[in-house]
Amino acid sequence: MKELRIGVIGYGFMGKTHSNAYVQAANFFNSRHKPVLQALCARNVEKAKPFADNWGYRSLEHDWRELLKRDDIDAVDICTPNHLHKEIAIAAAQAGKMVLCEKPLAMNAVEGEEMCHAVEFAGVPNMVWYNYRRIPAVTLAKQIIDSGKLGRIYHYRANFLQDWTINADVPQGGAATWRLDVNAAGSGVTGDLLAHCIDSAIWLNGSINEVCAMTETFVKERLHTETGKKEPVGIDDACAFLCRFANGSLGLFESTRYARGHKALYTLEVNGEHASLRWDLHDLHRLQYFDHNDESIVRGWRSIHVTDGDQPYMGNWWVPGLQIGYEHSFTHQVADFLTSLDTGQPVHPTFRDALETQRVCDAVLASASQRLWKTVA
Amino acid sequence: MKELRIGVIGYGFMGKTHSNAYVQAANFFNSRHKPVLQALCARNVEKAKPFADNWGYRSLEHDWRELLKRDDIDAVDICTPNHLHKEIAIAAAQAGKMVLCEKPLAMNAVEGEEMCHAVEFAGVPNMVWYNYRRIPAVTLAKQIIDSGKLGRIYHYRANFLQDWTINADVPQGGAATWRLDVNAAGSGVTGDLLAHCIDSAIWLNGSINEVCAMTETFVKERLHTETGKKEPVGIDDACAFLCRFANGSLGLFESTRYARGHKALYTLEVNGEHASLRWDLHDLHRLQYFDHNDESIVRGWRSIHVTDGDQPYMGNWWVPGLQIGYEHSFTHQVADFLTSLDTGQPVHPTFRDALETQRVCDAVLASASQRLWKTVA
Amino acid sequence: MKELRIGVIGYGFMGKTHSNAYVQAANFFNSRHKPVLQALCARNVEKAKPFADNWGYRSLEHDWRELLKRDDIDAVDICTPNHLHKEIAIAAAQAGKMVLCEKPLAMNAVEGEEMCHAVEFAGVPNMVWYNYRRIPAVTLAKQIIDSGKLGRIYHYRANFLQDWTINADVPQGGAATWRLDVNAAGSGVTGDLLAHCIDSAIWLNGSINEVCAMTETFVKERLHTETGKKEPVGIDDACAFLCRFANGSLGLFESTRYARGHKALYTLEVNGEHASLRWDLHDLHRLQYFDHNDESIVRGWRSIHVTDGDQPYMGNWWVPGLQIGYEHSFTHQVADFLTSLDTGQPVHPTFRDALETQRVCDAVLASASQRLWKTVA
Amino acid sequence: MKELRIGVIGYGFMGKTHSNAYVQAANFFNSRHKPVLQALCARNVEKAKPFADNWGYRSLEHDWRELLKRDDIDAVDICTPNHLHKEIAIAAAQAGKMVLCEKPLAMNAVEGEEMCHAVEFAGVPNMVWYNYRRIPAVTLAKQIIDSGKLGRIYHYRANFLQDWTINADVPQGGAATWRLDVNAAGSGVTGDLLAHCIDSAIWLNGSINEVCAMTETFVKERLHTETGKKEPVGIDDACAFLCRFANGSLGLFESTRYARGHKALYTLEVNGEHASLRWDLHDLHRLQYFDHNDESIVRGWRSIHVTDGDQPYMGNWWVPGLQIGYEHSFTHQVADFLTSLDTGQPVHPTFRDALETQRVCDAVLASASQRLWKTVA
Repeated sequence: MKELRIGVIGYGFMGKTHSNAYVQAANFFNSRHKPVLQALCARNVEKAKPFADNWGYRSLEHDWRELLKRDDIDAVDICTPNHLHKEIAIAAAQAGKMVLCEKPLAMNAVEGEEMCHAVEFAGVPNMVWYNYRRIPAVTLAKQIIDSGKLGRIYHYRANFLQDWTINADVPQGGAATWRLDVNAAGSGVTGDLLAHCIDSAIWLNGSINEVCAMTETFVKERLHTETGKKEPVGIDDACAFLCRFANGSLGLFESTRYARGHKALYTLEVNGEHASLRWDLHDLHRLQYFDHNDESIVRGWRSIHVTDGDQPYMGNWWVPGLQIGYEHSFTHQVADFLTSLDTGQPVHPTFRDALETQRVCDAVLASASQRLWKTVA
Repeated sequence: MKELRIGVIGYGFMGKTHSNAYVQAANFFNSRHKPVLQALCARNVEKAKPFADNWGYRSLEHDWRELLKRDDIDAVDICTPNHLHKEIAIAAAQAGKMVLCEKPLAMNAVEGEEMCHAVEFAGVPNMVWYNYRRIPAVTLAKQIIDSGKLGRIYHYRANFLQDWTINADVPQGGAATWRLDVNAAGSGVTGDLLAHCIDSAIWLNGSINEVCAMTETFVKERLHTETGKKEPVGIDDACAFLCRFANGSLGLFESTRYARGHKALYTLEVNGEHASLRWDLHDLHRLQYFDHNDESIVRGWRSIHVTDGDQPYMGNWWVPGLQIGYEHSFTHQVADFLTSLDTGQPVHPTFRDALETQRVCDAVLASASQRLWKTVA
Repeated sequence: MKELRIGVIGYGFMGKTHSNAYVQAANFFNSRHKPVLQALCARNVEKAKPFADNWGYRSLEHDWRELLKRDDIDAVDICTPNHLHKEIAIAAAQAGKMVLCEKPLAMNAVEGEEMCHAVEFAGVPNMVWYNYRRIPAVTLAKQIIDSGKLGRIYHYRANFLQDWTINADVPQGGAATWRLDVNAAGSGVTGDLLAHCIDSAIWLNGSINEVCAMTETFVKERLHTETGKKEPVGIDDACAFLCRFANGSLGLFESTRYARGHKALYTLEVNGEHASLRWDLHDLHRLQYFDHNDESIVRGWRSIHVTDGDQPYMGNWWVPGLQIGYEHSFTHQVADFLTSLDTGQPVHPTFRDALETQRVCDAVLASASQRLWKTVA
Repeated sequence: MKELRIGVIGYGFMGKTHSNAYVQAANFFNSRHKPVLQALCARNVEKAKPFADNWGYRSLEHDWRELLKRDDIDAVDICTPNHLHKEIAIAAAQAGKMVLCEKPLAMNAVEGEEMCHAVEFAGVPNMVWYNYRRIPAVTLAKQIIDSGKLGRIYHYRANFLQDWTINADVPQGGAATWRLDVNAAGSGVTGDLLAHCIDSAIWLNGSINEVCAMTETFVKERLHTETGKKEPVGIDDACAFLCRFANGSLGLFESTRYARGHKALYTLEVNGEHASLRWDLHDLHRLQYFDHNDESIVRGWRSIHVTDGDQPYMGNWWVPGLQIGYEHSFTHQVADFLTSLDTGQPVHPTFRDALETQRVCDAVLASASQRLWKTVA
């Protein structure tokens, strides 16, 4: 058993999901590598201490540059706001560390390209946390598609709907609401939510060739927690786009934080010649599946309760019928990362995989701003 | 094309569903017989006239005895409260009329037995309106079970839940609420609602051998619309029973009018060795079906949207995806009755079939009153 | 009681739904006008006769021009393929007949404009059969939105998904498949299915200002039933578009006949500041409603089973819990048309209302072909 | 921070859920007590070692009597088959240890009474793992009922359906299938599954006065893993019962392992005068709630997605919309146990609470065997 000593940078929502995932992966999955919470890095060490203690971090570090110098760190996990990803990731690669980076990879594809070069030049294992690939029902969807059951794909549609920013009093900036500050986030729902949809789509259905998008910012000004003043809102509150995939299928994507009644409703559907699939995050253990090859009088959408031992990842958990939670999408990603270290095979999505998603995001934002179809670079 | 001249007795809720069914059956189904609304019979002809005019009845009759004397009546349809079924049905049979009788067949099995003798002795076509057999999804359930897909049956459960009598101000007696008056109805939910569940159960799963029941009357007194005074309530507001079927399966039945939030939720489920089925009246065009023979990783409950042309009755309606309403369970029963006249084969449930349901009801009520298991006579 | 003598032109799927609706409206709804099936008009009278007999048409006519000359026809109901709408409707108006026209109004907005002028110049009552407005759950959605419960609207999304043309052996042209022949239909899913979505959207959420669309034809050639040869397919098999409404909300629409597993899945959703609504045609009696004003710990999407007497149209049908079918969207439209004759108030959608939908369809098709955002004319 | 040093006896399915819960409770909930996995006790220490290592147990013990002698053990957690509960629990209490016991409490109420006396005489904190009380949606149901929103309760129904023993080749006895061996389990579905339903029912709806039950054993003989021979099956494969609660409501319960298609479908529903509730374990984060006080036209069953911070336990997890898994019902029970140590208030269900459930189980089994109504002792 070899320790994988991890230095986590940031301790917000994602810092919590990752910390938990390292603990859980070790308890539920086998690997020759055991993740260890070696260091938590945070600008304000005082404030971070309770978090570090709770999760049993062995040390605290206040400057990520110091973290990178340490010999006792094998892997760096970047849980900061998006605008810091590039600098840290490149430096980490240069320091020879493995790099695990929260999504989206970067503020834009130019940054992302630099980051890919860095990790590839350094030859370090690298991974981006597009965790939804590893919800068991989504992984099962991938297996079903890859098995050929759907045949030729005609349509792919996805949306990610939330409602938490309808209230105009929600501020922008700061630790809790940096996602509303364009300088920290780069974009709004496009990078935050659609990026997930795009990553899954490319994984399940292949590359996207061209897009046509619209965006909207419903609340034009919000209090900025740093300036203490109302500032223009630079992010997109909502974004929708049409697209064409390389395989000839049509795509339709939408995300918003103004869909009253939906908290984190990520929905995807794929329609193929012979069969179709549908999934949503609010009932994440269920995969809807329609197979035209079923006998006609008893044909119907099947609600597959993905909890059986022969379904992805579930053999490591409880017994059939008993579901697991959102957080284990991260647990599975850690487990697969550990396996990749055991085998030497890369774990996906790598930085390079995530760069493709970034390029689609860039094309989407350019299309919305120019009101034109854009080819994905 | 031969006319089937019908005399309908009663014009309440069931009078309306039947009148409509005769009209619709002729429009949507083929037969050599065409139902004609020859006479509506009602004690108060004045009050019944708008109804008769609306549905195009050719005549009005104020006394059912007079109706039975008429040569221009081929079939009598009994839509009266339960306590009148016996006398009318027997007289109608003796008059050589075909007899269509609303459910439950009678106030009890003794009455029902007399009625069976009468129609059988007279040799007249006879039928009881257990209409739910002819909801397309329920008919499909029957086909699936008969095909052997379920294998050995282990469990049958059904309930029929309503909430319209929770309010203690609902009166008993009279045209609108005779179902709460034990003298008119014979029993409460047992004869009104459980009778439907029992009819379906026997049809789908065979005979019931023995039962053990409990009943309750939550509101002990209600204003009687005839006496104008509060009178004790003699019906059962709720009834539940355990049972054993002849095929060795276990049954569980429940009905109540005190299940807040349910209006007419008739649910049935059958669990077999290889497959299971589930249906409910609130989403009546959907049949839930689970088949253990499906490939394991994509196994799940199928929601069969019973609207395709190869599913029961649906070829006569619209196009796939478009559903029909509750009322057409009656339309289908008329259509099948007409076909039975064409072919000479009896249509089910006959009086004799309905007598078996009556016997189960009697055993249920006896069991509840004696607090003992009762064999179905 | 005044007879409304109707001449129906065409006896395909829509001829059947309309014929039934005239019969049913008279039986279930009150009006001083009673619709009468005065004449069925069909090129091949021989073939149409069984249909006419079944529905009790008083006469048959082989040429719609002859029909228009008759004094015993008050209203003309156009159930022909789309390319015949204009000529018949204009002639009917000129003959002083009321005109009821199947949707879409016309092959394009130019035609539609002429038709509007004709009926308005003649001053005849006119109506287009966008029947889905009158599904009780959809009408209820309208009431809820108009009551202000949703507040400012942010998003509207709708799709209409089918799968019946995936098989490349389905031909184009002829009575059964004229919808695949661009010369008869004008367009594919845009005029056939999206037109419904657009009509509902304008009704519920107001005008659409601009659109950006893509279309696709998956099967490029199909046997033409008239030429007996493979011919290029001129219709759109799938169409999706982004749009902006006049009220500032964003719209997303999609339709296809290549969504395996969906037969006639028309779905719409509206997200407002305070509440949201969702409906689909496969479970047409259910309206999903989320109200943020509900107490927070018990807040959730409500599944409103639209079957109660205080909900639109339902007081005329059965009792709570018992649903009605697709066909009664037409019944309700007839009932409302009759009421409009009683009151002298126009029934919507009029030709003028439907012209707005036509303009959106035209903009959608232009946008798809030019790959540009288009303002709705 | 005070350590709570736990000795866990057994490492099967429940040993795993408990071990995980101790780890997770410390990470997600605050308490002045921190659970520590001090010792794992297993007859075969060799076989148990990997499990102990995985979860980080500080020591291994092969004899539970030795475990009880240790000074470094504060609490004993009994995860053995049912027939061992009594002896261990009593000895643990006598040794002054806190006792956490898996459900059902005992083989029967006589044993349970002895166990209650032992823990109460010793004055040690004690708890039984009826974990489903602490699924957030179930806890929310309790809050709603206690708030009075439902008013007078008329009906309570619950079932627990599985299908894993339909195959007659599943053996009885041994570590994996002791639940099929009456000598180890005491009963079949009654103690295993209905006990959960009964515990929740008493908690939510108060005491049960009398019951009437039936049981069935569908497979009469199974291979016994210890004798290597086919042996009669002594457990109940299925059990259903009617009951009356002290508050006047009627109850209906059912459990089976022969309901094809259901893996662990625990469903409960409560119908009150003003409102109703429904929950099931297959979609465990959803609580269905109907409130008759809602405005009538928008009344419907609400699907409450129990993931918001103001709903039970959820403030300690992720963000709204993101669900947690089955396993955290145990985590919450540990968290509440730790809080009870902080405050000195007992955590429920105690042994005494669980004894009431045991008495109902005993009455159910006696009723089934004698075919009579039985009063709960």
